[in-house]
Amino acid sequence: MSERIGHHGLKSKVMTAQDAAQFVSHGDNVGISGFTGAAYPKAMPTAIAEKAKAQHQEGKEFAINLFTGASTAPDCDGVLAEANALAYRMPYQSDPIMRNSINAGGMNYQDIHLSHSALQVEQGFFGQLDVAIVEVTRITEEGHLIPSSGVGNNVEYLDNAQRIIIEVNEWQSLDLEGMADIYRIPRLPNRTAIPINNSGDRIGTPYIDIDVSKVVAVVETNAPDRNSPFKPIDEVSKQIAGHFLDFLEGEVRAGRLAYDRYIMQSGVGNVPNAVMAGLLDSKFENIQAYTEVVQDGMIDLIDAEKMTVASATSFALSPEYAERMNNEAARYRKYLVTRPLQISNHPEVIRRVGLIASNGMIEADIYGNINSTHVAGSRIMNGIGGSGDFTRNAYISTFISPSEAKNGAISAIVPFASHVDHTEHDAMVVITEHGFADLRGLSPRARVPKMISVAAPEYRPLLEEYFARAQKDSAAHTPHDLATALSFHSNFLQNGSMK
Amino acid sequence: MSERIGHHGLKSKVMTAQDAAQFVSHGDNVGISGFTGAAYPKAMPTAIAEKAKAQHQEGKEFAINLFTGASTAPDCDGVLAEANALAYRMPYQSDPIMRNSINAGGMNYQDIHLSHSALQVEQGFFGQLDVAIVEVTRITEEGHLIPSSGVGNNVEYLDNAQRIIIEVNEWQSLDLEGMADIYRIPRLPNRTAIPINNSGDRIGTPYIDIDVSKVVAVVETNAPDRNSPFKPIDEVSKQIAGHFLDFLEGEVRAGRLAYDRYIMQSGVGNVPNAVMAGLLDSKFENIQAYTEVVQDGMIDLIDAEKMTVASATSFALSPEYAERMNNEAARYRKYLVTRPLQISNHPEVIRRVGLIASNGMIEADIYGNINSTHVAGSRIMNGIGGSGDFTRNAYISTFISPSEAKNGAISAIVPFASHVDHTEHDAMVVITEHGFADLRGLSPRARVPKMISVAAPEYRPLLEEYFARAQKDSAAHTPHDLATALSFHSNFLQNGSMK
Repeated sequence: MSERIGHHGLKSKVMTAQDAAQFVSHGDNVGISGFTGAAYPKAMPTAIAEKAKAQHQEGKEFAINLFTGASTAPDCDGVLAEANALAYRMPYQSDPIMRNSINAGGMNYQDIHLSHSALQVEQGFFGQLDVAIVEVTRITEEGHLIPSSGVGNNVEYLDNAQRIIIEVNEWQSLDLEGMADIYRIPRLPNRTAIPINNSGDRIGTPYIDIDVSKVVAVVETNAPDRNSPFKPIDEVSKQIAGHFLDFLEGEVRAGRLAYDRYIMQSGVGNVPNAVMAGLLDSKFENIQAYTEVVQDGMIDLIDAEKMTVASATSFALSPEYAERMNNEAARYRKYLVTRPLQISNHPEVIRRVGLIASNGMIEADIYGNINSTHVAGSRIMNGIGGSGDFTRNAYISTFISPSEAKNGAISAIVPFASHVDHTEHDAMVVITEHGFADLRGLSPRARVPKMISVAAPEYRPLLEEYFARAQKDSAAHTPHDLATALSFHSNFLQNGSMK
Repeated sequence: MSERIGHHGLKSKVMTAQDAAQFVSHGDNVGISGFTGAAYPKAMPTAIAEKAKAQHQEGKEFAINLFTGASTAPDCDGVLAEANALAYRMPYQSDPIMRNSINAGGMNYQDIHLSHSALQVEQGFFGQLDVAIVEVTRITEEGHLIPSSGVGNNVEYLDNAQRIIIEVNEWQSLDLEGMADIYRIPRLPNRTAIPINNSGDRIGTPYIDIDVSKVVAVVETNAPDRNSPFKPIDEVSKQIAGHFLDFLEGEVRAGRLAYDRYIMQSGVGNVPNAVMAGLLDSKFENIQAYTEVVQDGMIDLIDAEKMTVASATSFALSPEYAERMNNEAARYRKYLVTRPLQISNHPEVIRRVGLIASNGMIEADIYGNINSTHVAGSRIMNGIGGSGDFTRNAYISTFISPSEAKNGAISAIVPFASHVDHTEHDAMVVITEHGFADLRGLSPRARVPKMISVAAPEYRPLLEEYFARAQKDSAAHTPHDLATALSFHSNFLQNGSMK
């Protein structure tokens, strides 16, 4: 048995995932660890999926309601969706099998602001939480849990679940211990301020204390996180990153930003990694991150002594960087703080620290409404994640995206957003490879030329035609021609192109 | 000269509004007091409007950029819009003349989350603030300003303006002194937590301290706030209020709410007043408000000893209640706290106290996206105000509205929101006279029957037809038929009815 289980009583709870699956029943509300491919339970999801299949073969119903931190992995969301083992899922996913099941009506998915997710469980909006399944690096002698590569909603799930299943993953470095900062906001009506004033402030403990008597099983694993490689930085991403840095430089010139101690929040992906690569060669120093996930680019910035601290809830590293982290966690933990998702994404702290948010999008309309989640209004891609938490509360909020997709068949700038995740009241700057549209201080009509200027050149005349048509019938605050407002999307659905 | 000007140096600055208008020039950024008809400057707007007209008659340009707390009054927003004296206006308005000017393209209006408004000025997004024009009850000997019937963005405008014009309004009761709680969040990068844990906590001073040397004029006035009478509570409002109270009762039964110390936030209008009238006869005790404006219904709740404290940024009283307030401010100030808008609407405090938000809307779609601002997607009505600040951060967020308007020509429940101010990720409960749709924990498809159940009966078959059609072509997470998604609105524009 692993030396990673220090607590005497919990040693006696060690069993296989198959045996532990007895504690998960049809209809259960199950909260699990896992955020962006890190720290998800590696064995239990497959065991539950197999149990579901067996039950289905016997003609019995078996489906659980699954709450996570965010996206997980094929051997978690993927196997569970494939086994039709899920009735409901929240708050974020990015698995192809799961996505298809959701869009086919095979399961219910609720796309929730990440800062709301554990809060709503805690507030009882889902009824009783039956089971928490949480991966850890080790269990101390006192029965404290040392988080693995992410914290996510673990604290709230462990606090609120009736039964706890712990996965102890030997793949995770023991040197991660000391990186997590576990803090609980007192429950209503006794909530108080979160005493974080700076990204790196530590306000809690490096472990999660739990009610050990609720633990029904401990499962030992030795399996890597789902760490997706990033593609090499392409030309378009480099151009977008260049415009993002131009924008920052402009803020410095305007006296609204300093080269010292710029605080970043960054979504995950190739463009954000290009931005971070750009920062490596920039004048910005002592950069901090108050964000959701630690990414490769931040590790590079730390190694280059350009970044002093990154606060996040989890890792989202490539396999190469994950290995480096596992080897050098003792060094990196001086620069990294992993927090409960409710803290990493809390409006209170986000608004306080004054960060510049940067998130991806599917499309923006000419007035600055942002669609982050749906293709042509109907099909969900992934989810809003924490982009709403950061966008609404950032010092400056930006959205970054290539101006077109599918070889030009899709424009990221459209007349009317087919789904709105961030409103015209929230988006400040939209950046594509053609430049940045700074919408601050502008009325809707005044935003239009800026937005059209960052659209792909072949779509600009179409957008201008739309705006002219929208203004023809009746001048208005936000002119729209409802008959053709969604024509880009209809065209795409019918002809495979928005043109 | 009024005894209300205590500061020796400022006595020498007393002049007429016409004379003071010399300090307001074409192109100026001007921040004024005023929130929902209370505490706006009574003399300067007309003086500026007259200056604008005179300049225009001489063929000269004259237009200022006007920042307020929220809506003001005909003798403020109205006269300025009528004189074409405004190039830009933020963050909220409700004046008919101004609305027409905005929709006709006569001026630029930016509809900003109220909690963002002073913040964006402070952060320099509008450049230099040239002038602050603020109404007060009196000026102390030290030169401190005692706020009148509201605080709004006064503190930030006074702090950031190069020149200050003060209006001292004798109509405002001197007994308002002690009601305001003036607190400044330290500036970036030194921001710290706002130490409010309970609605009634006082954390600041009862006055605004200013740089007296910036004051260029003091204008004496004696004029009432624009206090609009409320209509008698109609049957539909009563029914909506009944369903709202039913919803609260259900939360108590579910253990998610107590009869003691329920905390309300409430938009302004007849339905909210009906809700507060309903609370008078309810089992709820020791009710608190952490909200934007003090309304008649809250005064009634205080008088009935049902409400212990109301925190707001301003008053929105009927003439009858405003008179009562002026006579009895010394008594009411024990129950009322007026705060800077940035504090009354701050996500940090809103999320901490755990309030139940209740705001009006123009329409909601079948998936729970909320349009609070635009008629048929294009024409602005008023603005988002603080509804986003409260909705996103409330313990529970509700939207309340009659199910139809214009004698049934308009349905408040539509297939696709023609503008989105609150996303499907934010709205939890939608309440009409037909009941409440509790959307918590539901996927988009699962929300549809709930939403249709609160629509007007004659619109339900049309909504069901739409949902069936939307699902026919392709099952999806959020099924839409883009060709007919906006047909309710197109119908209304073409035929005067959504039917």
